[in-house]
Amino acid sequence: MWIIIGISKLCTTVRSGVVKLPQASLFTCSRAMAKSKFEYVRCFETDDTCLRNCYIVVRLDGRNFHKFAEQHKFTKPNDNRALGLMTRSARSVMEDLEDVVIAYGQSDEFSFVFKRSTTWFKRRASKFMTHVASQFSSSYVFYWKEFFGEQPLLYPPGFDGRVVLYPSNRNLRDYLSWRQADCHINNLYNTAFWTLVQKGGLTTTQAEERLKGTLAAEKNEILFSEFSINYNTEAFLHRKGTTLIWEKKDETVTKRMKLPNEEEKDVKVTRSRKRVQAHHCDIIGETFWEEHPDILEDDG
Amino acid sequence: MWIIIGISKLCTTVRSGVVKLPQASLFTCSRAMAKSKFEYVRCFETDDTCLRNCYIVVRLDGRNFHKFAEQHKFTKPNDNRALGLMTRSARSVMEDLEDVVIAYGQSDEFSFVFKRSTTWFKRRASKFMTHVASQFSSSYVFYWKEFFGEQPLLYPPGFDGRVVLYPSNRNLRDYLSWRQADCHINNLYNTAFWTLVQKGGLTTTQAEERLKGTLAAEKNEILFSEFSINYNTEAFLHRKGTTLIWEKKDETVTKRMKLPNEEEKDVKVTRSRKRVQAHHCDIIGETFWEEHPDILEDDG
Amino acid sequence: MWIIIGISKLCTTVRSGVVKLPQASLFTCSRAMAKSKFEYVRCFETDDTCLRNCYIVVRLDGRNFHKFAEQHKFTKPNDNRALGLMTRSARSVMEDLEDVVIAYGQSDEFSFVFKRSTTWFKRRASKFMTHVASQFSSSYVFYWKEFFGEQPLLYPPGFDGRVVLYPSNRNLRDYLSWRQADCHINNLYNTAFWTLVQKGGLTTTQAEERLKGTLAAEKNEILFSEFSINYNTEAFLHRKGTTLIWEKKDETVTKRMKLPNEEEKDVKVTRSRKRVQAHHCDIIGETFWEEHPDILEDDG
Amino acid sequence: MWIIIGISKLCTTVRSGVVKLPQASLFTCSRAMAKSKFEYVRCFETDDTCLRNCYIVVRLDGRNFHKFAEQHKFTKPNDNRALGLMTRSARSVMEDLEDVVIAYGQSDEFSFVFKRSTTWFKRRASKFMTHVASQFSSSYVFYWKEFFGEQPLLYPPGFDGRVVLYPSNRNLRDYLSWRQADCHINNLYNTAFWTLVQKGGLTTTQAEERLKGTLAAEKNEILFSEFSINYNTEAFLHRKGTTLIWEKKDETVTKRMKLPNEEEKDVKVTRSRKRVQAHHCDIIGETFWEEHPDILEDDG
Repeated sequence: MWIIIGISKLCTTVRSGVVKLPQASLFTCSRAMAKSKFEYVRCFETDDTCLRNCYIVVRLDGRNFHKFAEQHKFTKPNDNRALGLMTRSARSVMEDLEDVVIAYGQSDEFSFVFKRSTTWFKRRASKFMTHVASQFSSSYVFYWKEFFGEQPLLYPPGFDGRVVLYPSNRNLRDYLSWRQADCHINNLYNTAFWTLVQKGGLTTTQAEERLKGTLAAEKNEILFSEFSINYNTEAFLHRKGTTLIWEKKDETVTKRMKLPNEEEKDVKVTRSRKRVQAHHCDIIGETFWEEHPDILEDDG
Repeated sequence: MWIIIGISKLCTTVRSGVVKLPQASLFTCSRAMAKSKFEYVRCFETDDTCLRNCYIVVRLDGRNFHKFAEQHKFTKPNDNRALGLMTRSARSVMEDLEDVVIAYGQSDEFSFVFKRSTTWFKRRASKFMTHVASQFSSSYVFYWKEFFGEQPLLYPPGFDGRVVLYPSNRNLRDYLSWRQADCHINNLYNTAFWTLVQKGGLTTTQAEERLKGTLAAEKNEILFSEFSINYNTEAFLHRKGTTLIWEKKDETVTKRMKLPNEEEKDVKVTRSRKRVQAHHCDIIGETFWEEHPDILEDDG
Repeated sequence: MWIIIGISKLCTTVRSGVVKLPQASLFTCSRAMAKSKFEYVRCFETDDTCLRNCYIVVRLDGRNFHKFAEQHKFTKPNDNRALGLMTRSARSVMEDLEDVVIAYGQSDEFSFVFKRSTTWFKRRASKFMTHVASQFSSSYVFYWKEFFGEQPLLYPPGFDGRVVLYPSNRNLRDYLSWRQADCHINNLYNTAFWTLVQKGGLTTTQAEERLKGTLAAEKNEILFSEFSINYNTEAFLHRKGTTLIWEKKDETVTKRMKLPNEEEKDVKVTRSRKRVQAHHCDIIGETFWEEHPDILEDDG
Repeated sequence: MWIIIGISKLCTTVRSGVVKLPQASLFTCSRAMAKSKFEYVRCFETDDTCLRNCYIVVRLDGRNFHKFAEQHKFTKPNDNRALGLMTRSARSVMEDLEDVVIAYGQSDEFSFVFKRSTTWFKRRASKFMTHVASQFSSSYVFYWKEFFGEQPLLYPPGFDGRVVLYPSNRNLRDYLSWRQADCHINNLYNTAFWTLVQKGGLTTTQAEERLKGTLAAEKNEILFSEFSINYNTEAFLHRKGTTLIWEKKDETVTKRMKLPNEEEKDVKVTRSRKRVQAHHCDIIGETFWEEHPDILEDDG
């Protein structure tokens, strides 16, 4: 572990020193600060501070999860164990990082939104994305057994991530809407596809052919008329994905307390505690945001 | 999973569209490309391509590993199980990413060096650091049992990472020298400190006091004169850390083959295979680099 | 002149080509696109697109203007010719770049604010700042004579610039308020300082000593009680700086037009034209912004 | 003028303050440091330090110079007055910034190469490019008369710029070769084109048609067989562009000095002075670089 105190000081020293010294001095550091003559290499690190007053979004995507899903026999079109494990891992990230105000996940991806005024780790983009990617990945393996029981995890999975900034509430909500619209589009397709295969007896190639160029209404119609499936009553988890937010819950516990007169008595104590809560509802419309006015900060 | 094809095209479309259209059109996308009207938010992603012809270094550091080490009863000053697990996880990263030409680790950190001409993932910094952080972290949990046996992992650990670019072989070697010099300085201190505590009976405060301001030679002297420990014969693993490189090994296997005359015969087949090999030697001097001339690419 | 069409295509080609080809191919380009084998160097350019939906501010500062002012005998504390020339140059920048919605200048600095939805030059930061710096500087020399008459310009002056992004209207207004507050603080100091020197007969050292640590009220008091100067009636230009905005003006011209019956007649035609207008008023409070509601775009 | 001392300190203060204070405090600054409550906006500036040990290249291009050339009646295919003014302006930039080790120009573009170890302005990209763009542009207007005499400059011209980093000597030389190859390609085309128009009596459309798809050899052939022009003996200035470097010149001056015995005497004093020198030679091959070994710094 290396504690980065004074890096800007070190680099400044190096820089300003060079002005007067021969050129080689770019590669020397002041004795006082440096543990070794090699320490100048720290000056090659560049600053990646996120613009202030913007929402910082980290999105993770599973790497080669198509193959991973097959090797681990995920059920099609959705595997509730896998979705549960994704959500459990995301919860682990949120509990570790209170500045995440909302997270949204579907399929093998999860997005984490940091509050626009966060000052966590000096808003350095690399810290946000690597910490989220790391915590999520170690959690995925750690909690595997809770969801897959004795079915073994065959190898350590990978997720990659990125950081995107959104300057306004409108932009952020549109980002989340984009992901939820994507969830809907993909799930409708996958539901139709796998129904054609599993119940309709088509090969995967035939199913693909059948769905080529169809609109949403046509996919709904295939499901309803041929298989009596009303897509709109399919599980919210699959159609809407998973939204995690912090919610305050009042918790009442009974405590035995000593009264001034030395007597003891049972007293009910109510505490407000923040907990991560999962929702599987629409987050594109206004209702969700009106019901949870504390998630976003004013643009002002 | 979202496949990013055509993002630059999309964003260009949006941009150029705006020139002529009313302002609101910044937030609309061409129907043809977009799955939903929210897709414009993709244009907020920024490019983080690494400068070409530079070595790309990703360094990971354990988060709160001081506490993690205590909770998991790591032996002091070095825990070989923990070091072994770090190396196993680093090997997992390398095997996943052939473009890593050398990796160096010590204590709870590991650095991965990508070859300067790598074009993996279009040289996008976020991909490098999140993929390494993710793969390393999931591997750490996955392989825990191999090193800690029945001792349980109490919670999923976190690592954070960063990307640093080095334009020349000299700079890169100095980076690696910096980390190995750091290993030496810390290990000498820790060896002296824990010997004073474990064998000398000092409290941690007393040991700290005793070592304050001492030079390397003085710490060596304390170890030698008071505890008959010759620091220079301590384990290379602890004094030099772990260097991972790709090495070609000839593997000879015996294969039963059919001859043209229908006869069968045992034939010895020799194949050259690249494997990740661990070293615990000095990488500051010239010897290591002269013995492995293929690690670095010419500056020219 | 080099027209940058297809750079991303070129670089992609180069990159993807390398995957399969020997390493040297990083430095070769597809014949079809490249005019010469050296063209690969274009791939070293990095993207500096400004985050969307943010105001883009370019601020210019005079380089060594303390010395420049002395050599060109600027009057103290303010030289109206120099201020006029700064404003003339800023107007030249705005007329060249319609997407500048407001500009603010004082002393030897000028800030240009591009509308948040601008797509000028694909929002590349380098284009914004170099274009503004260049146009402003050439204009400064070009219009010198208009303000300094026969007094010669001794050498070509330099200005440096920077780009800063502001995600919300509040942040942008606070930026402009910061510059105007700075104008006030500096002008009050300079007015007091030069009054002490020019009318009070103090040396510059004595004047500096006298003002050291004084609050605004004390400087006002010195001016009023010792020199009968009411700072609040000093010129708005000096106390508030210069704000440039686009204003619509109705222009009525008389045009001779042919009527259907072949007769000719004078007709009055009124056209709305946008022109750059200068203001020397407070832009910290609400009034200015209420009177010009079109400058800012909604945060939504 | 605003002196940026302590910006990182200010921003750190703001950031760290926020951790404990209510959210609004992101927008307040410590009284001690801030001149006004608006000063927090400085924290929105982002760092744009150039990677160390890389050559920093700033390239300027004339904006709308096609039109500018026509309006100012530049001769075709090359106008020596215009080329002279470009070079004069570039010289002005170099003399202002000693860390430029080489500059190369052709047509309406000029590239400035800063030495790889430069620490000028803390290697901030925005400073490099705006300063160069500004100094070049003001010089262009300032020196106009020296080259165009009484022909008036009709309006202030603009140049835009960019920064590109090159990590190795090979990459840098290839960059310069790219620009010189471009000079050759364009000049050959323009020479053939304007000869066909001016001497061959073709319209511009006919000339364009005639040259479409021709190789270099064919253009040479047209010039030679139809117009008896040997392209290879055309002016070096036009075929090779202009390279500016620093050269040491010994200057011998005669000074009248007082001898110890009070006598006066003329003494010859020789001083080595660095001056900007223009070359119009090939810089793609080895010769130029062998003759000027001090321009580049070792990759090591």
